[in-house]
Amino acid sequence: MDQNQLKELVGKEAVKFVEDGMILGLGTGSTVKYMVDALGERVKNEHLSIVGVATSDRTAKQAESLGIEIKQLDEVDHLDLTIDGADEIDDHFQGIKGGGAAHLWEKIVAINSTKNIWIVDESKMVHTLGKFPLPLEVIPFGSTHVLEKLDKMGFRPEFRMNGDEHVLTDSKNYIIDLHMGEIEDPEKLANTLNGIVGVVEHGLFLNVVNEVIVGRQDGPEVLHAR
Amino acid sequence: MDQNQLKELVGKEAVKFVEDGMILGLGTGSTVKYMVDALGERVKNEHLSIVGVATSDRTAKQAESLGIEIKQLDEVDHLDLTIDGADEIDDHFQGIKGGGAAHLWEKIVAINSTKNIWIVDESKMVHTLGKFPLPLEVIPFGSTHVLEKLDKMGFRPEFRMNGDEHVLTDSKNYIIDLHMGEIEDPEKLANTLNGIVGVVEHGLFLNVVNEVIVGRQDGPEVLHAR
Repeated sequence: MDQNQLKELVGKEAVKFVEDGMILGLGTGSTVKYMVDALGERVKNEHLSIVGVATSDRTAKQAESLGIEIKQLDEVDHLDLTIDGADEIDDHFQGIKGGGAAHLWEKIVAINSTKNIWIVDESKMVHTLGKFPLPLEVIPFGSTHVLEKLDKMGFRPEFRMNGDEHVLTDSKNYIIDLHMGEIEDPEKLANTLNGIVGVVEHGLFLNVVNEVIVGRQDGPEVLHAR
Repeated sequence: MDQNQLKELVGKEAVKFVEDGMILGLGTGSTVKYMVDALGERVKNEHLSIVGVATSDRTAKQAESLGIEIKQLDEVDHLDLTIDGADEIDDHFQGIKGGGAAHLWEKIVAINSTKNIWIVDESKMVHTLGKFPLPLEVIPFGSTHVLEKLDKMGFRPEFRMNGDEHVLTDSKNYIIDLHMGEIEDPEKLANTLNGIVGVVEHGLFLNVVNEVIVGRQDGPEVLHAR
């Protein structure tokens, strides 16, 4: 199976966790896209009554086109389950997200969700985080000074660009990617980044995920994290 | 002297610290308005060559109307001096800002400034912070859940509204005011708030100010903080 087939596999596996009546957080990204397709099929075939809360405008559009009812996060009082992708997951089930520039909304949805499932192809499983560039969402105002500060800290920061234009998040902020190579102490780094003025949110998702579904050549593997 | 006269007094006093050639951070608020007026006069009368970086759109407009050259923060490589107001200053020269909903940009400018001066009328000087509601800038997405979390933490949060509409910051975020009464440990509170997903920035300005100019009935008093 190629990477896309693995993504489709875990997407289909994940929607087995969905039960009638649930309020669901819907992530963002190429793996999630397959999951939302599979969810749409279940909703249609089994007439499920579920509500989705999307972590990006593009996921909302896809879900609605498949007949999944979408509400705003502020219109629901809780989320039962959130299914999302991840860019890296380490041996302790800590993750990096934000390759799709949606990690702020993804994190807000995740922490308001009773349960979190991440779906990934096996290439995302690593021993130590950091080979994947760590995304930060930053306030545009003064962001060159934030970049400079991160550079002095040795974090090898880089604005995420689309040609000459800054990539903009759904909250109209910029993304800075940190090319750290290896993140020895994710908790410590998270605290450091939380304290930097102008950084809205970093892509470290610590102690968040409950189940990880990994797409392997011989089928989906479900790993219980916490 | 009434409160406005005290504000005018410290505004005029503050611009004495401005030197030709400086890149200046310009705060926001009713006291700063007097300072910018006084700065405009100095620039005009003494043909000073200064550049201002504004912490809000309204300060930028006022300064430009007085002939002060305004640049964006990302167009300058440093700031020599920032003059701003404050809503409360305690015995240790820690402050609360954000009554004017501009504390995010104010903080970004402040931390990039070599020196910071705060100008206040004497009513702003307190022993302990917290009688003035502590402002938080929050991401609109999911903000009702942030409010709920803050409420459970006992922080007595309230959205800042303008009639039925949320007050929007220059970064298009919402404001939540915490009615804490008394903040026993500002550093601890700052760390807690930094860790809450969805909170962009709080109004605690800790270890930031260098000189405080207080408007008293018998004249301006300059206090050296750090």
